[in-house]
Amino acid sequence: MIRLRRSQAVAGLTTGRITAFSDGVFSIAITLLVLNLHVPTVPGKLLDQLRTQWPSLLSYLLSFVIVGIYWVAHHNMFHYIKRSDRPFLWINILLLMCVAFIPFPAGLLGQYSGQRISLITYASSLILTNLMLSLLWWYATSNHRLVDQDIDPHFVRTVNRRNMTAPVVYLVSIGLSFLSPLASLIVFFLFPLYYIIPSHIDLHLTPTSRTKEEPKEHEDSTGEDSSITGGEGEEDIS
Amino acid sequence: MIRLRRSQAVAGLTTGRITAFSDGVFSIAITLLVLNLHVPTVPGKLLDQLRTQWPSLLSYLLSFVIVGIYWVAHHNMFHYIKRSDRPFLWINILLLMCVAFIPFPAGLLGQYSGQRISLITYASSLILTNLMLSLLWWYATSNHRLVDQDIDPHFVRTVNRRNMTAPVVYLVSIGLSFLSPLASLIVFFLFPLYYIIPSHIDLHLTPTSRTKEEPKEHEDSTGEDSSITGGEGEEDIS
Amino acid sequence: MIRLRRSQAVAGLTTGRITAFSDGVFSIAITLLVLNLHVPTVPGKLLDQLRTQWPSLLSYLLSFVIVGIYWVAHHNMFHYIKRSDRPFLWINILLLMCVAFIPFPAGLLGQYSGQRISLITYASSLILTNLMLSLLWWYATSNHRLVDQDIDPHFVRTVNRRNMTAPVVYLVSIGLSFLSPLASLIVFFLFPLYYIIPSHIDLHLTPTSRTKEEPKEHEDSTGEDSSITGGEGEEDIS
Amino acid sequence: MIRLRRSQAVAGLTTGRITAFSDGVFSIAITLLVLNLHVPTVPGKLLDQLRTQWPSLLSYLLSFVIVGIYWVAHHNMFHYIKRSDRPFLWINILLLMCVAFIPFPAGLLGQYSGQRISLITYASSLILTNLMLSLLWWYATSNHRLVDQDIDPHFVRTVNRRNMTAPVVYLVSIGLSFLSPLASLIVFFLFPLYYIIPSHIDLHLTPTSRTKEEPKEHEDSTGEDSSITGGEGEEDIS
Repeated sequence: MIRLRRSQAVAGLTTGRITAFSDGVFSIAITLLVLNLHVPTVPGKLLDQLRTQWPSLLSYLLSFVIVGIYWVAHHNMFHYIKRSDRPFLWINILLLMCVAFIPFPAGLLGQYSGQRISLITYASSLILTNLMLSLLWWYATSNHRLVDQDIDPHFVRTVNRRNMTAPVVYLVSIGLSFLSPLASLIVFFLFPLYYIIPSHIDLHLTPTSRTKEEPKEHEDSTGEDSSITGGEGEEDIS
Repeated sequence: MIRLRRSQAVAGLTTGRITAFSDGVFSIAITLLVLNLHVPTVPGKLLDQLRTQWPSLLSYLLSFVIVGIYWVAHHNMFHYIKRSDRPFLWINILLLMCVAFIPFPAGLLGQYSGQRISLITYASSLILTNLMLSLLWWYATSNHRLVDQDIDPHFVRTVNRRNMTAPVVYLVSIGLSFLSPLASLIVFFLFPLYYIIPSHIDLHLTPTSRTKEEPKEHEDSTGEDSSITGGEGEEDIS
Repeated sequence: MIRLRRSQAVAGLTTGRITAFSDGVFSIAITLLVLNLHVPTVPGKLLDQLRTQWPSLLSYLLSFVIVGIYWVAHHNMFHYIKRSDRPFLWINILLLMCVAFIPFPAGLLGQYSGQRISLITYASSLILTNLMLSLLWWYATSNHRLVDQDIDPHFVRTVNRRNMTAPVVYLVSIGLSFLSPLASLIVFFLFPLYYIIPSHIDLHLTPTSRTKEEPKEHEDSTGEDSSITGGEGEEDIS
Repeated sequence: MIRLRRSQAVAGLTTGRITAFSDGVFSIAITLLVLNLHVPTVPGKLLDQLRTQWPSLLSYLLSFVIVGIYWVAHHNMFHYIKRSDRPFLWINILLLMCVAFIPFPAGLLGQYSGQRISLITYASSLILTNLMLSLLWWYATSNHRLVDQDIDPHFVRTVNRRNMTAPVVYLVSIGLSFLSPLASLIVFFLFPLYYIIPSHIDLHLTPTSRTKEEPKEHEDSTGEDSSITGGEGEEDIS
């Protein structure tokens, strides 16, 4: 009676709707980070009490930047991912589960920044998030499952490798925490620069196939999508 | 003086706007779940204190997946629901009331996972949410009230039946909790797989009428709607 | 040098963007209501502790419905409001300030439902919200400032009157609270039905001018707007 | 192998998507402000306990308006910013980090409104936010980096100057707090009017080049963008 059409079963959940829901979770998780800073309620000199919160403030700054990096990476991926299917949908939900979890280890790191267990929890949480991000990209790109056929294979491998850098670095920082919690913390704060500094990211994230002469065609092919979020590129808006 | 035009009275509240508001509530409720995990504030060995929170962590994982399932189901339904009226609008608000409530029983389950009362509260909360979801679909589809005339009746019944599976299973788990809270918990964790594993969902959610040859026509008929969320199907985007 | 173009000064803040921001605040405020329910943390019989929370549960239900009513009213208004200017923008921000405040009196009502002061705080908060909603509609419609010229004057007055019903009723309920807090509470729970039950709302919210023969024209005139949120009416989507 | 195309490296992060994410953070931060008001949990006369919260209520009102001002300014800027690049993206994320932080100093100001340290923390937080807003505008407009070539240079300078007014005023209020905390508070409450009262804002925010005769052309040039958020101006919608 019922014919199987697996690829269309989640037709209602297009990449556009997945992105909108994901953006919601990203923006809420990043804003909830501030709840880890507490207005002192016990009596005492206010300045002294605020001073005890500077590790929480540093954790806020660090975690905000890290969730920001994940959001940028997620969006850059969805720029190339054109389709969706059920496994992909659930890998993305598991990724969001990791992202929405970050306020907890962030609070832990702020409250107990000198203790190894909070460093390990924080690093583990980020490792899991990165593995999910890697899985999402690997699943979408292997056999061109959810991306265009003409995507540059070198580019796909480069993103795969970049995604796997963070888990390795955070594993090292866990090892470091047994020697010196401070050294581990320094890794936490320096490593995000790897994803923020332009030259690196641009080198890896720009596919060979997208030359100066053809962006117009590319934009046209995703024209339907671009009308949702306000235009995909400079060409559409200006 | 005033002519009654009931069907248009809530013309400003189209399915597109209802979906946007619903997505907001879904993404906030799912992200608030992490607030049930508490950074220890009383003195004591940190690792021991974190160990006492693993039930809360499990409750986070479970509840995140369950809200995710509701979001997927909600969106799949709205793929077929083309119109809105006032009763439908308020059934949807009641459904959101149930979804936004889930962080409370989720926190209860994490804190008191061994106590029957928290198992019953959690199951009851999910039963209510599923009943609202069932009511929403039943209201929209009976007499083709808010769906297209050519929707497959077999498909409508299948979704109705699937929606009613969860209340029955959660009722059974409430019964089980009187024999063994652990058995009840196992049902909680295994049952979501029924909605996640592809084969099952695809079998039920794909209407007979949507054959391989005609998706283009279908997409066209909802072209207005698809332009909002970035394209309804693979055909639109790729 | 600089020519004054007041009407365009906030051109970047169109009704579409104001609606998107407002929807965000509405959906967050409505979801934060659940934080007024507390998982018991002190030792004691769990069932007994949960029983003490049923006023908080009732306050959750009531406040969720009330914020829902405001969201519906806000959207219905923005269906007719076509332009924006700076005073309108700030009246709307003040309205959102009232809406975002509701979780506080809602928590108070749940915790101290028998005390007059919490009833008065709750009612006052709703009175303020309704006055802002009235001001928003009055400002937009007087002299057809931000609405179309052909809007039915009878319809405008009807909405004005409906907006002012709630402040009067809540003032009465404040008076009642001095005689009997319970009577005041009953008014709280019964009055929202006035805004939910279809016949009333449809009678008032449907302008005379929108007859069965001409909706197509109306929809066309707002075609630009409808493409954002997924179609304004049934005609657009089906 | 890989050709560098820096300008397109973050092609997936258009101004439309950045705005959507930013709106999320703005609307969540502004709604979280209410969590600084606490339902009394210790025994005592309820009215007396609520009276102690009026500074928190004033801080809520003030901070809601201030975040509202930032949101309006952010949107007005993005009305002119047509492109995005990686440094701009990260300046915006740092700005959001400042905005999302505001609930903490707002809570501090409410709880300890008489103490200089909370006044300084609040003012410093706003200074940082304004500096980020200034940096964002300066980066986007210098050398017409991310704006159109025909943007009025006088207008660009005027916005630059307006953006730098707040840091100066808040620095003065920090100085004042050493003489009189109350005087400092009065500055906090009066200064936002500078950004709200129409005449000032309109004078500065309206570029000379946008005359009454040419808005149509302007709207057309951003037609792609306007279709997302519901139309840019009155012309599009009416």
